[in-house]
Amino acid sequence: MKVAICGLGLIGGSLAKAIKKNTSHIVYGMNRTKSVVDEAIKQEAVDYAITPEELADMDIVILGLYPQKTVDFVLENINNFKKGAIVADTCGIKEYVVNSLEKPLAEKGINFLGCHPMAGREFSGFAYATDNLFENASMIVTPTENTPAEVVAKMREFSKEIGFERYVVTTPQEHDRIIAYTSQLAHVVSSAYIKSPTCKKQVGFSAGSFKDLTRVAKLNPEMWTSLFIKNKTALVKEIDCIIKNLTEYRDLIDGEKEQELYESLAYGTKCKEDSIAMNVKRVEDIINKRDKK
Amino acid sequence: MKVAICGLGLIGGSLAKAIKKNTSHIVYGMNRTKSVVDEAIKQEAVDYAITPEELADMDIVILGLYPQKTVDFVLENINNFKKGAIVADTCGIKEYVVNSLEKPLAEKGINFLGCHPMAGREFSGFAYATDNLFENASMIVTPTENTPAEVVAKMREFSKEIGFERYVVTTPQEHDRIIAYTSQLAHVVSSAYIKSPTCKKQVGFSAGSFKDLTRVAKLNPEMWTSLFIKNKTALVKEIDCIIKNLTEYRDLIDGEKEQELYESLAYGTKCKEDSIAMNVKRVEDIINKRDKK
Repeated sequence: MKVAICGLGLIGGSLAKAIKKNTSHIVYGMNRTKSVVDEAIKQEAVDYAITPEELADMDIVILGLYPQKTVDFVLENINNFKKGAIVADTCGIKEYVVNSLEKPLAEKGINFLGCHPMAGREFSGFAYATDNLFENASMIVTPTENTPAEVVAKMREFSKEIGFERYVVTTPQEHDRIIAYTSQLAHVVSSAYIKSPTCKKQVGFSAGSFKDLTRVAKLNPEMWTSLFIKNKTALVKEIDCIIKNLTEYRDLIDGEKEQELYESLAYGTKCKEDSIAMNVKRVEDIINKRDKK
Repeated sequence: MKVAICGLGLIGGSLAKAIKKNTSHIVYGMNRTKSVVDEAIKQEAVDYAITPEELADMDIVILGLYPQKTVDFVLENINNFKKGAIVADTCGIKEYVVNSLEKPLAEKGINFLGCHPMAGREFSGFAYATDNLFENASMIVTPTENTPAEVVAKMREFSKEIGFERYVVTTPQEHDRIIAYTSQLAHVVSSAYIKSPTCKKQVGFSAGSFKDLTRVAKLNPEMWTSLFIKNKTALVKEIDCIIKNLTEYRDLIDGEKEQELYESLAYGTKCKEDSIAMNVKRVEDIINKRDKK
């Protein structure tokens, strides 16, 4: 297949490298800053540079861009894609992107599939792209009732070739609700945590828990601003939930409610144990069931 | 030296193993459940079992007990310690323990030094004790104006022998304020995080950030209930601070305040970068300065 990657940042660049390493597909690259394409070609992450007009020859076009840029780029190039091709994004939110692009592309006979490769690093840009970023990672795809089954099947095969460990099929809405919790909330909480004035005194007093809680506080503000606002309903709901839980702990501690605090902490421990068990034991079942849908 | 460890749980047991592995001191063990002492002797983590009366022969007595049990045990055995001996606790809070024990022990001619070995695991009990738990860890000690300098110096030497990487000297009050942030808050937030109803749907949607944020949600409810309540002033202040920061994020996201959200996230990223730089570059300076006090 001929695969184009538009936007050779951390995700686009890592996809290019993983495709080149693990498959025999031909990879075409495009990037706002031209020197990045040159570098990608030099590193053999990309076989050829490509112009917007040459997208007409591609079987799969992957967008490695932020949500708004993804939508803008596809709509600007809507007449450049090949009939029957698959256009796939890699954004961390899906409803906004799918709603913006599926219909206009379908009207031109082009398939759109929302994709979210579940991996990242604290750094941005092609310089940090690696060919193994997606090992142990899930590829989440969000077809709608209009998506042909063969498009979902083709992307499953492609994801497997690239090296993703899991392929998860869900709806754009469910994706956004769960991602608000598993990924977006983590970044909000980590950022809120690091801002305490006490942080400046922390040297020598920090064990693993502080490091874990604040790791993702170093983030790409431009990207996350866009992701947070475009998924605000689900994310605000999760922030409200953790504020409620924190307020409960605050009041139990302040009121020295020993027994209730014990029970509340024990319940949290049980939730975590259930979560671990779910991941360890049921992951295969759940994914198989989802995939069969 | 003759060193007694009273309470052979995760911390007491790991200290016993590390002392036996790295030093030639003789280790005596005591534990509520007698079979644990037998097991410790069998594993050569402890040389001999000891009775409360035999504490009179010990140069250093280390308490591996929860805060209330630490205080109760020392007061019950106040006539059993040797004049000039060092009694040291290992609790995660210091002001309560130091205030309860320093004076009664001093009146008997016994030195008390508040100690906090900064290490832990998600598991409790001697079965999980390891001889390398304190590698890369800080030993924090909290002398007061009444503590003889030679007691602080002796514990420094002993900590180094045991294998601690750093020795941090601070006041009980400063310890409790900073620990409320670096350790206690991490456990509260992690526990509050895992309790979202969305957690049950998280399989296949979780990357590293969710795992990091919820790792310490699996905790020992009995121990943390006691630590939280006994340090409630400092901890409630930190919980209030993160709730305030989370509420700010919530309102910026809900109000789609793009520019302000961007700036707020960028500030969080800067705080994290500063924190990393502080740990990497200034750790030696800061600790040296603290130690010279």
